[in-house]
Amino acid sequence: MRQLFLILFVLATLGLSFTARAENGYDLWLRYKPVSTNLRGQYEKYFKTICFPAATDRLKAGRDELIQGFGGLLGIQPSAGTPAQSSLVVLTLDKIGTLKKFITDAEIQQIGNEGFIIKTISEAGRTRLVLTAKSDLGILYGTFRILQLMQTGKSLSALNITDYPKTMIRILDHWDNPNRTVERGYAGFSIWNWHKLPGYIDPRYVDYARANASIGINGSVLNNVNANIQMLTPAYLEKVKALADAFRPYGIRVYLSVKFDSPIELGHLKTADPLDPEVIKWWNAKTDEIYSYIPDFGGFLVKANSEGQPGPQSYGRSHADGANMLGNALAPHHGIVMWRAFVYDDKVPDDRFKQAYNEFKPLDGKFNANVIIQIKNGPIDFQPREPFHPLLGALPNTSVMLELQLTQEYLGFSTHLVYEAPLFKECLESDTYTHGQNSTVGRIIEGKYNPALLTGMAGVANIGTDINWCGHPFAQANWYAFGRLAWNPHNDAASIADDWLRMTFNNEAAFINPMKREMLHSRENTVNYMTPLGLHHIMGASGHYGPGPWTDNLGRADWTAVYYHKADTAGIGFDRTETGSNALNQYAPQVQRYFGDLKTCPDEYLLWFHHLGWQYSMRSGKTLWEEMVHHYYTGVDSVTKMQQVWKSLSPYVDPTRFKEVEQLMAVQHEEAVRWRNSCVLYFQTFSRKPIPAGYEVPEHDLSYYRNLHFPNIPGQGVN
Amino acid sequence: MRQLFLILFVLATLGLSFTARAENGYDLWLRYKPVSTNLRGQYEKYFKTICFPAATDRLKAGRDELIQGFGGLLGIQPSAGTPAQSSLVVLTLDKIGTLKKFITDAEIQQIGNEGFIIKTISEAGRTRLVLTAKSDLGILYGTFRILQLMQTGKSLSALNITDYPKTMIRILDHWDNPNRTVERGYAGFSIWNWHKLPGYIDPRYVDYARANASIGINGSVLNNVNANIQMLTPAYLEKVKALADAFRPYGIRVYLSVKFDSPIELGHLKTADPLDPEVIKWWNAKTDEIYSYIPDFGGFLVKANSEGQPGPQSYGRSHADGANMLGNALAPHHGIVMWRAFVYDDKVPDDRFKQAYNEFKPLDGKFNANVIIQIKNGPIDFQPREPFHPLLGALPNTSVMLELQLTQEYLGFSTHLVYEAPLFKECLESDTYTHGQNSTVGRIIEGKYNPALLTGMAGVANIGTDINWCGHPFAQANWYAFGRLAWNPHNDAASIADDWLRMTFNNEAAFINPMKREMLHSRENTVNYMTPLGLHHIMGASGHYGPGPWTDNLGRADWTAVYYHKADTAGIGFDRTETGSNALNQYAPQVQRYFGDLKTCPDEYLLWFHHLGWQYSMRSGKTLWEEMVHHYYTGVDSVTKMQQVWKSLSPYVDPTRFKEVEQLMAVQHEEAVRWRNSCVLYFQTFSRKPIPAGYEVPEHDLSYYRNLHFPNIPGQGVN
Repeated sequence: MRQLFLILFVLATLGLSFTARAENGYDLWLRYKPVSTNLRGQYEKYFKTICFPAATDRLKAGRDELIQGFGGLLGIQPSAGTPAQSSLVVLTLDKIGTLKKFITDAEIQQIGNEGFIIKTISEAGRTRLVLTAKSDLGILYGTFRILQLMQTGKSLSALNITDYPKTMIRILDHWDNPNRTVERGYAGFSIWNWHKLPGYIDPRYVDYARANASIGINGSVLNNVNANIQMLTPAYLEKVKALADAFRPYGIRVYLSVKFDSPIELGHLKTADPLDPEVIKWWNAKTDEIYSYIPDFGGFLVKANSEGQPGPQSYGRSHADGANMLGNALAPHHGIVMWRAFVYDDKVPDDRFKQAYNEFKPLDGKFNANVIIQIKNGPIDFQPREPFHPLLGALPNTSVMLELQLTQEYLGFSTHLVYEAPLFKECLESDTYTHGQNSTVGRIIEGKYNPALLTGMAGVANIGTDINWCGHPFAQANWYAFGRLAWNPHNDAASIADDWLRMTFNNEAAFINPMKREMLHSRENTVNYMTPLGLHHIMGASGHYGPGPWTDNLGRADWTAVYYHKADTAGIGFDRTETGSNALNQYAPQVQRYFGDLKTCPDEYLLWFHHLGWQYSMRSGKTLWEEMVHHYYTGVDSVTKMQQVWKSLSPYVDPTRFKEVEQLMAVQHEEAVRWRNSCVLYFQTFSRKPIPAGYEVPEHDLSYYRNLHFPNIPGQGVN
Repeated sequence: MRQLFLILFVLATLGLSFTARAENGYDLWLRYKPVSTNLRGQYEKYFKTICFPAATDRLKAGRDELIQGFGGLLGIQPSAGTPAQSSLVVLTLDKIGTLKKFITDAEIQQIGNEGFIIKTISEAGRTRLVLTAKSDLGILYGTFRILQLMQTGKSLSALNITDYPKTMIRILDHWDNPNRTVERGYAGFSIWNWHKLPGYIDPRYVDYARANASIGINGSVLNNVNANIQMLTPAYLEKVKALADAFRPYGIRVYLSVKFDSPIELGHLKTADPLDPEVIKWWNAKTDEIYSYIPDFGGFLVKANSEGQPGPQSYGRSHADGANMLGNALAPHHGIVMWRAFVYDDKVPDDRFKQAYNEFKPLDGKFNANVIIQIKNGPIDFQPREPFHPLLGALPNTSVMLELQLTQEYLGFSTHLVYEAPLFKECLESDTYTHGQNSTVGRIIEGKYNPALLTGMAGVANIGTDINWCGHPFAQANWYAFGRLAWNPHNDAASIADDWLRMTFNNEAAFINPMKREMLHSRENTVNYMTPLGLHHIMGASGHYGPGPWTDNLGRADWTAVYYHKADTAGIGFDRTETGSNALNQYAPQVQRYFGDLKTCPDEYLLWFHHLGWQYSMRSGKTLWEEMVHHYYTGVDSVTKMQQVWKSLSPYVDPTRFKEVEQLMAVQHEEAVRWRNSCVLYFQTFSRKPIPAGYEVPEHDLSYYRNLHFPNIPGQGVN
């Protein structure tokens, strides 16, 4: 009878009329479940009569969302009234009339074009909610904020909110191919059904736009940075236009990844030299053509001279030459170029860590005003932990944006619960010292040090055809957190988790608090069982699935694991001090000293910068070997603990999602054990030390783990 | 305000508390929306107190479904009572006690192991519903029937239902590959997430099983008939086991497609000769291994010596030798072999139509008792219209099952509204005369003429990762109709459409009647704009997308279109009379005469059997050329009419699905016009006759249509 009791439980606690539908996660954080708290009465008061004229598609999107929200949260449909009659007034500033007197010039100044003001206004014994903004988009963002406040159980009785996005470009990068495979996608396949476009607009496209708008995302790069030229053909531009039209009401502009050699492959020119007049002409014409389909097209994302992709260097030109040529084509249409700093040429460098800095630092100030350099959070490639990228802060006269990876390429795909906000925050709060003390990555990304520059944040999407969008119910939190941090890099991981849990599950403190603790710790758990103490890039080859510290024989040395951990019988770690690659030299002096000096270098970053003996004595008093083993075992233990916490929360979670997460945590545990045993046994062949007493002995020997074979690993979509 | 008014409309008509969720089609025909008719009171009466003890997972599945249904349909949760107290009693016959007296021995006899009895019983002034059956599966099927009756607005006050399935094997064939591509799949990708199995049971697997059980489907072949040997490895058998465990409560057994050369490719033997002792040993061991994972494993589906697949003939053995060898391995476990009759060898035959009959007719009676031959409805390959397969009825001493294609490989993929039940019924009601008059395909498939034989029906699934499962909201009807016809081949297309529309949309006669008419006509519409008058196999090459009557140069002649239409300046059509390939000779004499004689051969089949001059005078008085043109234009016009009908029904359909179908119909219209224009212009190059006056002139010339190029056509998944 468990099912029956659960239904009764749900009814009792939420007082809803029974729904036949299970929680399949499709609704993300926009579930609008009935409000059960005593705030319900207060909320209803504000939404009996509303004044929300919607003359544009964007305003209509906002009003429809509010009405849907009221229906779900309160089961009411407001009637329309005049500003004077209404308890909720939603008007742009130019139409707000006498209510203007409640808004200060400073507030209007502050919100800019995308911000909004929400106030609870008491006048002549009446209390009203007022939402206003300069633009329709500001209004849309404000409506989602009102819904968020209700979903998270906040009072509306004394609001005085003035909010606006701290960065300009808040964008998802989809590594989606025209054949619908997704490179590094672990939630199924691409949600873009190219074959059925432009004629068929999957309702999912609109729900995608709603979800993004609800967290302030304003752009979407539709296709893989390893770009297929097909996307630039008229047939596909028709399809891109259809998506742009579907997204427009929600303030989402579409962008495309382009292949630098398109003039040759698509235009049949002899060269793609960015200074060649024919090439320039071709890109200008192609860009004009794109804008003839999509007047508000966002621009291009370019991966050039990296991992085999063509680029300006193939023609003896610089990244600036290439980016500016495209920038010139886009400028008349107010489009931008996002040029990736993730580059490494065909020669294996002494240290890949240094390559982006070496190539881009000399180009500072040489990029057009509509070109922005997209820099990954770390110098290698989205590892569980990386130090901040040395280019961050090193380009004072160049627009830069941060590239974060939401899809869990190196964080357990879609079976490991890893809340990434702490990882993102670790980077955003890193002090680069490039503009004096406290010149954090966050402040640089905000454009604090050069108001003339473009700003932005990109997230490599973790979205696919899975019904719950992200494969793991908790992976949705990474999409959510990315949007919240792109809106404001100073938001903190805990409050974002709190909001997300409330909107996605419920407002029960007995659920929120323990689960929030687990989320906040989850990334460190994974670092511990995968790459503790600054280890990096030791995952399985090509598929990047599971452990592969033994990987030593791939296409090039800097694709292997041994290149990065450099384990030998003497010790382990990559010496990046002046006795080694001296990559540290790319940081400000304070950072060089901090990471370079063993007295100050945190354990978390130790092997990123130092090659140390197995007997090296750690702060804990343990040897390096003992400490490493300890971290691997701690990582697994913390997954076990997370499983126990989840089990204890079953009364607060619907049976479908409870079971899903329970199963996924079991898979995570199994894979964490495999990581631990593989790495401990492998590194033991160098340390030649026993696994200290008290730790469970690995179930199998090293050869067992080395010989495991996994066919059809997802996320290896070929273009 | 449209959205607002629609919400109010919904509330007004259905009296629901508002749901924030749009109709995205995920719930299929199991939506359980609140009953708004005056039957509500009657229904509630029966479900206040129920007696439904559930000691097994299968009974629990049935009870959970009922409770979910009551909650959705009536918003009530019944309390549990004794048989005496309860208004609904659900008990297997062995537990039914005194209620036994209301059930006759004849009824018990009739229902067999999978059937059920539902009666409204009045006794001592009390009226109760009783559901009983011999097995838990019968009970499960009965619970779904009770829910169907309520969903379709039927009274429960005087039920006396005795029902049971007319065929034994009611199965979906998934042409799904381990990499999740789906051969001929047009609804996204495979719902089997092999990488996350066995640890993660996607809730979708259970909803898949529920939907199948609700229509009586009791088996699922998980992988493509072009089989990947990976499926037989221990790692994948673990995953198959996990799916089997998830399906078992719903009475779904899993089956696997196997590659005949597995002993070589997987077992590293030198041969796969079915008479080789080592080969026999290998299959016996592999089969035992499978059953060690899945004790109720269903068996194997085999595509042998067809389209490059290996088979017994590669070793000089017969299909019977191959099938019986596998049958022997499965027999101890009560598994079966489904051996496909869709074969053609490497030599291009004079007429592929004849090949299956030529190969299998001589083998009648030579197959083991647990081998069943799976025969497509027609002799070629799931064309919009085919005559019934000449093997149907020609194997009186061999178990045969019908293979139908639900996925619309030749019926417009997932953008054309084509209700396939009329196509299926056309085959089922064809009189083979092989056992005297009225020995219809349906009666043969039922096993009417040889009770000793196995019976069954297979449907090539149209299911994928799309949220609505089938890509087109109306494509769900083909999955539904297949189940209903496999349960009872004598069900009629109209009543199945009626039930499906009511369960999937609503019970409004003003919606049901016009839409049912469109569904029933939809397949003929598509025949008209694709392949009228018996044309067949003239679609685009390889991708099978759109028209390709000009296709003339592929790997082998019988893959081209010209091989089948044989158009020349003299005329068009494939002469299969004795003056031609004499394929007709494979049918019973009555059928030979019927199709062979121009006086009796229906226009619909004309060019399947006759090559006729362009001036041939049709029954209508038109020439063949004029008639053909007329059909092509009529097909497009009927799509236009269908669009108008749909528009007129907007008040009865939720906005999301209304818009989806509206868009899909527009795509269908565009593609129908392309089919019409391409075919009319192409055949005109032979007929050299003008398009008769009054018909719209094609927008483009033939070369335009011939040169259209469509990249990334779905459904070409490679294994």
